[in-house]
Formats: sequence, structure tokens, C-alpha cells
Amino acid sequence: MKAARWHARDDIRVETVPDPTPGPDDVVIRVAYCGICGTDLEEYREGPIWVPVAEPNPLTGKKAPVIMGHEFAGEVVAVGRNVRSFAIGDRVAPDVVLYCGACYWCRRHQVHLCEHMAALGLAGDGGLAEYCAVPAAMCERAPEGVSDAGAALAEPLAVAVRAVRRSRMALGESVAIVGAGAVGLLAMQAARAGGAGEVFVVERSPARKELARQLGASAVLDPTLDDVADELRRVTGGVGPDVVIECAGGPGTWVYATSLVRRGGRVVVIGLNSTPTPINVTQAIVAPEIEVIGSLAHVYDEDFRAAVRLLGDGRVRAEAIISHRIGLDRVVEDGFLRLETAKAETLKIVVNLRG
Amino acid sequence: MKAARWHARDDIRVETVPDPTPGPDDVVIRVAYCGICGTDLEEYREGPIWVPVAEPNPLTGKKAPVIMGHEFAGEVVAVGRNVRSFAIGDRVAPDVVLYCGACYWCRRHQVHLCEHMAALGLAGDGGLAEYCAVPAAMCERAPEGVSDAGAALAEPLAVAVRAVRRSRMALGESVAIVGAGAVGLLAMQAARAGGAGEVFVVERSPARKELARQLGASAVLDPTLDDVADELRRVTGGVGPDVVIECAGGPGTWVYATSLVRRGGRVVVIGLNSTPTPINVTQAIVAPEIEVIGSLAHVYDEDFRAAVRLLGDGRVRAEAIISHRIGLDRVVEDGFLRLETAKAETLKIVVNLRG
Repeated sequence: MKAARWHARDDIRVETVPDPTPGPDDVVIRVAYCGICGTDLEEYREGPIWVPVAEPNPLTGKKAPVIMGHEFAGEVVAVGRNVRSFAIGDRVAPDVVLYCGACYWCRRHQVHLCEHMAALGLAGDGGLAEYCAVPAAMCERAPEGVSDAGAALAEPLAVAVRAVRRSRMALGESVAIVGAGAVGLLAMQAARAGGAGEVFVVERSPARKELARQLGASAVLDPTLDDVADELRRVTGGVGPDVVIECAGGPGTWVYATSLVRRGGRVVVIGLNSTPTPINVTQAIVAPEIEVIGSLAHVYDEDFRAAVRLLGDGRVRAEAIISHRIGLDRVVEDGFLRLETAKAETLKIVVNLRG
Repeated sequence: MKAARWHARDDIRVETVPDPTPGPDDVVIRVAYCGICGTDLEEYREGPIWVPVAEPNPLTGKKAPVIMGHEFAGEVVAVGRNVRSFAIGDRVAPDVVLYCGACYWCRRHQVHLCEHMAALGLAGDGGLAEYCAVPAAMCERAPEGVSDAGAALAEPLAVAVRAVRRSRMALGESVAIVGAGAVGLLAMQAARAGGAGEVFVVERSPARKELARQLGASAVLDPTLDDVADELRRVTGGVGPDVVIECAGGPGTWVYATSLVRRGGRVVVIGLNSTPTPINVTQAIVAPEIEVIGSLAHVYDEDFRAAVRLLGDGRVRAEAIISHRIGLDRVVEDGFLRLETAKAETLKIVVNLRG
């Protein structure tokens, strides 16, 4: 089969590799669509971060070269001998994060805190390939009415769902989303589905602003045009939103997010950025008594299941955030490089593996 | 009466001023003891921060010079005409933070978020005086068996109680306290009273370490002698404490606190420090999915009431943290300057107003 494999930094190759065979508890998915994520780009340009290069990852048994891709869906074409939950022909979307089952947290049934979690598509072979073998226990059935491309986005939606859950958002609270990229637009819809009173979006790209409006933003604010903090206070009765979800991942954007939230409010940080940014903790966090909450992992728990449900009943329109559908052969040029160079016009790029 | 008044930065004077008279809803307290707080020192050396200088504070009607002191207790010697809850001779401790009753939050019964909160002893006349008038509604009766000096510490204990509450600590969780100054030692006792499984203390001063042990620390770790993060992991089954309460208030000590807490744990920051400190949000907050929670205010809500109860039943021994009892006449030399120059040997300094 054809697959896109990470060999080294700046070296992803589309090449022919053996088809996967299912282990006793696995299904083999004939992949329909696979999304490309900011984490993939980071691994391409700055890796190895998650890809094992010296020793095989203990959970996946794999080291570089590994097949990338951790947002995918497709059809079951083979099942391992122990698999009862799925049959050939089922349409599925897999969660991709494995837990070790042996660390302190796994032994206490808190697998979302697993110290050795490993993602398919980074620490093991993923979905940027014609076929992918995954444990059946990690698969959810793709709901009827959800396209393959939409189902492939259950994974990034689970990231957004997790952030909303970790915000402890109460019914009717106001939420601001900083950054209307793919995850931001999903978080906006997830917050709305979770009962947010109003969801404001902070974004500067005209295309993303327009899409945010179409997908139901209560208002869209542009830091190059508006005094965002002032305007957010104005539309929230003078106080600022109850919850801010930071999805931009720029240097210091999380510090900016703390300046927007109301006194006593919660800032959830999803956006990844490793630039050390200075922050005055007294002024930014202690005096206004806010909470800054990290949100990252979604080892197979309720986040992924909830994401599939929200896709299935139409409360989240994931397919709307797809800006480009490309083929596997040019995944580097049309996928990774476009994500890097045409950021403002690019939202979610999905690769059609049956193209 | 004699009182210690803030006139300007580096200018606190003990002088004779008129005795206060009670408003219709006030009591006048003959002050027995009043503590000196790090905030007082900051106002002395770096103020005006909280003391109004240009215009009177709208809630207190006062501007500089103001009588300092916001940790005090004493005996009621006069009551306003509307006061029914207290009588002359009652021993009381007052909460000192006024709320406006008119802002967005006050109108929604969330007075702890009041945007105009004002503390007696900073924005209005406080307890470093022979007498002080305070609203009767802000007073709690000092429990029998609690000394006047102990009752004066209900206020800093309320700060510690609030931090424990904001940590959402569950029964049996492990807690680490960074910094065993006055507030740290109170937070340690409050966490213990709140059902912490174990309470670890991180401190380098030999005197404070010894006191932490006496007051019930499960273990005391010294960053100059121990690898604190390693040791905390060792004593918590390999993971780190569930909750860390940052009470040191040094530059970057809150960043240090984030390195100690377990994955998915909570860091509550009480310590005030306005030095912008760099932090890698991905590494420190997002990847380990921790929460950083600011804790400051304790407008008269349940925090202060709980503090008085914990003093009354002996679960917190506040008097044990008193290192010096001084007279008002030398409050600057023996109080403020000692706090500044002999920090390691000084815990809580209380002023005996009847001396």
C-alpha cells in the first residue's frame, strides 16, 4: 500500500510499504480520509518530538520511519480473531491515543493521565495510508449521515470537547474562543452544544472570521480592528466572558487570554506553544482569582465518544472546517507546506486516501 | 487615641488621632492585638498600592493618611444605634474587606468578586490603633478559649482557608505547601483540617522547618538540601502531590510550584509577586493538564466564618505562628523593619495595642 512516512525532520516520504495485518484484537481500516494537524507539521519541521527514533515505542513497538496521520476514518476490511464488536464493512473512526495500562494512573483507572501515552500517527503507524490496523476497542462506529471526511474529524473534535469539559462551563455561561483555526471553530461549536449562553470568537483572518459567523459565533472580534477586551466586557454586561478557550497557540496568546476573562473566570489552554512567555502572576491570575487550565490528552475516554455523538446528531458541523481535500501523492506539497505558508487561508486539510 | 498611620511611601507615623465614633451600623472595637502582614510592608516600601491618595476611597470615605492594620481582634466598647447582634463587652474579630454592593457581581450576590472591594487598614482606617470602628455585620464573635492574639489571626487564616477551598481538595488528597511563612503554616493546618491525606512543606529556613514539623507537616523538604520534586514524587507513589499551594511569593516560585504537582493536579497561588516570570505553557501547564488557580479575596463570605470556627475548635493553632509581640510605639522599627530584614527568623508579628 501507499503511505506517508516520517523518516526525519523535513523528510516525509510517500512510499510503498507492506499492508498491515490485524493483531488478534485489531481491526484493519481501509482509510477514506485523514486530516493533517498542527502537531504533524511541528513533527515535520521540528521533530522528532513524538516519533521514536532511537528505540521502538514500548506501546506500539515502532520507531521511525512511521506512518503519520491521527485524524482518520474508513471502513473495516479485516478483523482479528478476538474481535466481536465490529465486522467487515463497518464504517469506523478510531481514537488514536494508547495508554500503557501499567503506570500509577492506569492502575487507578485514570488512563487519561497515563504517563506513557502514545499516539498512532506519531509513536506508531497512523492513517496517512491506504490501510491502518488499530485496536478494535479504540474504534467508534461512524454515525449514519456523517461523511467519511466528517468522521475523520472526530479526533480534533474530541480535543475541543475535552477543553469545554475541563472549563467546567455551566449552562448559559459566556465563552470566548481565541483563534478560529480548526480546533477553535470546533471548540466554538462544542461550547455552543454544551449550553454556552454566547460564544465570542477572536480572530484576524477574514476567511476564518466569516466561517466563525456562519457556524454560529455570537460575535467575532478582530484584534487588529477592535479593542477586544473592552468589547468583550461590553457584550457581557461589563465583566468579560466566564470562560476563555485559547486555541491560537501563538507566543503569549495564553497570557492574552487571561486578560480577557472575567474576574473569577476560567481560561482553558489548548494551543501549544513552547516559547517561554513572561507573565505577572499577581496581576494576571491571583488578583482576579482566575483559573488557568491545561487541556491536552484524550486517551480513549468519554471525550472521543462525545465527539462522535455530536457529529452524529449534527450539533457540530465538522466538515465545514475542511478547506482543502488533497491526494496522498502530494501530501507534503499540498498539505504540510500549505499549512505552513498559507496559514490564514487554510483550515483543515484532509487527505483522500481513495483518490 | 494612638494609631499608626500611612502618610506616604516609607512614612508610617505613630501619632495621636481622634477616637472613632460608631456609625449607626458599626461597632467600635478596643483593639487587643493586630498583626502585620506582607501586604502592609509592601504598602510601606512600594505604596501607594491600596491606600487612596488623590481621592477618598468611595467605600471608606478615607484617603491618606490612613490607619494601617487589617488583622485584629478586641472588645466591643460602643455600638451604633441599629446594632443588635453585638453588645458592649463582646470579644470580636472583624473581616476587613468591604464590598460595594452595586457592581455587576455584588448585584448578583457574588460579593467575593466585587470590583471595588476595599480593605480596612489600607483603603480605610484599620486596627493598628487603640480603637477601630467597623460594620457590625463584618464581625465574628471570638470563640471562647481563643486568645485575643489568636483571634487577630482569623484574617490571615481566612486567606489560607480560601486557598484550600479553591483547590477543590478532596478528602485524602496529598498537598504540598511551598513556603512556610505565616500564611503557609496556616494553609498547612487548614489543608490538614480539610482532610488532606498528607501535607508536605517546602521551606529552607531552619526555624520555619521546625515549626512546620511541630504543627503537623507529614514531611518537610528543603530545596537547598533535597531534590524536592523527586522526593515529593517518591512519597506520593511516584507521581507528585494532588495539590500544591504556593505561599512563598518569590519571583517565579509559582512556576516552581507547577513543576511539583502531579499530572492533572491543581496549583493554587496565594503568594503575591509582580515580577514577570517566564513560563513555557505547553510544558508546564498544557501537557501535564494541570490547573493554576489564583486565590486572593475574602470579602465577607464563608472563608472568614470558617476560619473562626477552625480557631475555636483548635483544629488550627494560629497563635503558634506568632514570633514577636511588640508595642505600637515601635511598630515601624520592631515590626515593619524586622519583617524586611530578618525574614527567615520572623513569622507573624503582632502588635499589643493595650501594651
